[in-house]
Amino acid sequence: MNLAAMDVAGRTARLREALAGADVAVDALLVTSLVHVRYLTGFTGSAAVLLVPVDGTTPTFVTDGRYATQSAEQLGAAGVDADIRVGTTSAAQRDALQQATSGMTRIGLEAGWVTWAQQRRYASEWFAGAEVVATDDVVEALRRRKDDGEVARIEAAARIGDDSLAALLPRLHDGPTEREFAMELDQDMRRRGASGPSFETIVASGPNGAKPHHRPSDRRIAEGDAVVVDFGAVVDGYCSDMTRTVSVGEPADAMLTRMRAVVAEAQQAGVETVAAGVASVDVDAACRRVIDAAGWADAFVHGTGHGVGLQIHEDPRVTSVSAATLDIGDVVTVEPGVYLPDHGGVRIEDTVVVTAAGCRPLTTAPKDFVI
Amino acid sequence: MNLAAMDVAGRTARLREALAGADVAVDALLVTSLVHVRYLTGFTGSAAVLLVPVDGTTPTFVTDGRYATQSAEQLGAAGVDADIRVGTTSAAQRDALQQATSGMTRIGLEAGWVTWAQQRRYASEWFAGAEVVATDDVVEALRRRKDDGEVARIEAAARIGDDSLAALLPRLHDGPTEREFAMELDQDMRRRGASGPSFETIVASGPNGAKPHHRPSDRRIAEGDAVVVDFGAVVDGYCSDMTRTVSVGEPADAMLTRMRAVVAEAQQAGVETVAAGVASVDVDAACRRVIDAAGWADAFVHGTGHGVGLQIHEDPRVTSVSAATLDIGDVVTVEPGVYLPDHGGVRIEDTVVVTAAGCRPLTTAPKDFVI
Repeated sequence: MNLAAMDVAGRTARLREALAGADVAVDALLVTSLVHVRYLTGFTGSAAVLLVPVDGTTPTFVTDGRYATQSAEQLGAAGVDADIRVGTTSAAQRDALQQATSGMTRIGLEAGWVTWAQQRRYASEWFAGAEVVATDDVVEALRRRKDDGEVARIEAAARIGDDSLAALLPRLHDGPTEREFAMELDQDMRRRGASGPSFETIVASGPNGAKPHHRPSDRRIAEGDAVVVDFGAVVDGYCSDMTRTVSVGEPADAMLTRMRAVVAEAQQAGVETVAAGVASVDVDAACRRVIDAAGWADAFVHGTGHGVGLQIHEDPRVTSVSAATLDIGDVVTVEPGVYLPDHGGVRIEDTVVVTAAGCRPLTTAPKDFVI
Repeated sequence: MNLAAMDVAGRTARLREALAGADVAVDALLVTSLVHVRYLTGFTGSAAVLLVPVDGTTPTFVTDGRYATQSAEQLGAAGVDADIRVGTTSAAQRDALQQATSGMTRIGLEAGWVTWAQQRRYASEWFAGAEVVATDDVVEALRRRKDDGEVARIEAAARIGDDSLAALLPRLHDGPTEREFAMELDQDMRRRGASGPSFETIVASGPNGAKPHHRPSDRRIAEGDAVVVDFGAVVDGYCSDMTRTVSVGEPADAMLTRMRAVVAEAQQAGVETVAAGVASVDVDAACRRVIDAAGWADAFVHGTGHGVGLQIHEDPRVTSVSAATLDIGDVVTVEPGVYLPDHGGVRIEDTVVVTAAGCRPLTTAPKDFVI
């Protein structure tokens, strides 16, 4: 897959600017989230931290012995300037960070990513001479605005999902179990170039559809069943997310046709509301208004959507209590649903990117109900 | 798959005993780790917390609207006695927990699982009237001693890995890329009943073998290559972990034969050392002694092993700095390796369970080098 380049090397400078302008002053941010380390350096391993001094001093990247070669390769390929320190023991890693923070008085931690136990250890042992300061959502805020390379990756993942679903939907008539169908979908996405599913694929048929996060079971899918398929792919670390609900032949329960019409209308209303400058709560409200009017306010038991990128769930949230305002480069899902224990469930979801002109859906599979 | 039952319902009582006997006194533990919520209740969803009062009052299980049905089903199936509270908003969940902790003065948090941001919110908003207390490794300590049902699940996962590897190793002669071979292995494990791989499968061939945590690339595997295959399966939430290093035909580089002999000897020495009452550091030392004697002390760049269970990496750690003493029911890996940038890498790993008689390997694939 040839994908537009990402500007990984430019992200550290933007982080420094954000830190310099933040309410909470720090001398450096210790980036401990592996997602954020990847975002800032291109490193994809399972152990590393990145210390970013605000004053423009070269950042320090600390990893363990397993990643000496990989970190040099990946940071080099991304053109990232960092002092790579390999510590084979926790003590050696601590020494490297103590050296890099020498003379600093306020060291920022990512409060949402560091455990309380880690914070206690940093404060009392690793950085005992400095003040350890809580920061919130600093790198998260940068990550919201996806660059063209990031959107290209999410779109490539979405395309794989679209293609896999199109290839496999006809097989629902063959009566697979939910588990079998989920497995086929995952395998097909990998054959098309996904590194894996972006979360555990949901295939919820018949009564199981009433459970929004049902795990694929050994229930055999039958003619007349409605089937909720919620899934996504990962391409170069970036996730896609899409839900379609289909009926295998004419639905056995006529209520499903009505549920599907309401949810489709709600989902369309939500997508049409997405634009730069719009409050997330208004997108949520647009979906909820349609479902409420149908009398199913209590049957829409989750938020309307969430950001998608290196994580399957990230900022901004699209819920009735979100404080976020959408902006260009945000990638979010719009996924209302109705769940009725006696009838099953319907959910329809697209991943869209906010543009200057409103939004553009990245998932584009047809929304036909009866297949 | 028919697997021996697990005693899920009995675990809460053991947790209460552990809390009552702990150095740090609390009125209740708020279990926020989803792994621990699953361990204590059987719930497999992505959002729930469990409040376990020390005095024997019924625990409170709080989840969101997506999991109303699933939580009732799963806790019921496990025979777990808990007051299930479904809160569709964060505020409703907070109210449920405030009600359940009414009158309590010391509420324990899992310091290793709660983020610093969460701890700050619990302390200042959710439980402002009480003291929020850091606890460490309480449920982790219980989880170390696997019951027969848990060992059966890890063993079933290990068997799937053994069988998949046996079925697919001959295909290395067909010249697949690392990525293709990893994908085939993952798919084969799912066909045999795994819910998925227990971590991202490592297939590292030729020079890539020198990177212990190499990600499968598009490098095509050739005759004469050594190939490190590190992988595992998940069965009912429980992981297996195994590494084999094979040479596709006679190795092109004679050094690999020597590396393989040293690592095999080190791995056997490690496994033979595993027994109840033995310090983890002694298992690590047994492996390291053999590799040091070969002159490759600096080429064994990671710890010897780790516990395996609901997590792929859990207590006890088997390293040169681990404070753990092995006990019956511990399930650990023994996985020494040697990595030489000019030659590649060799790692051999088994997952073993500590028994009254020493230990029993759960992964049992042959260790032949040349295939």
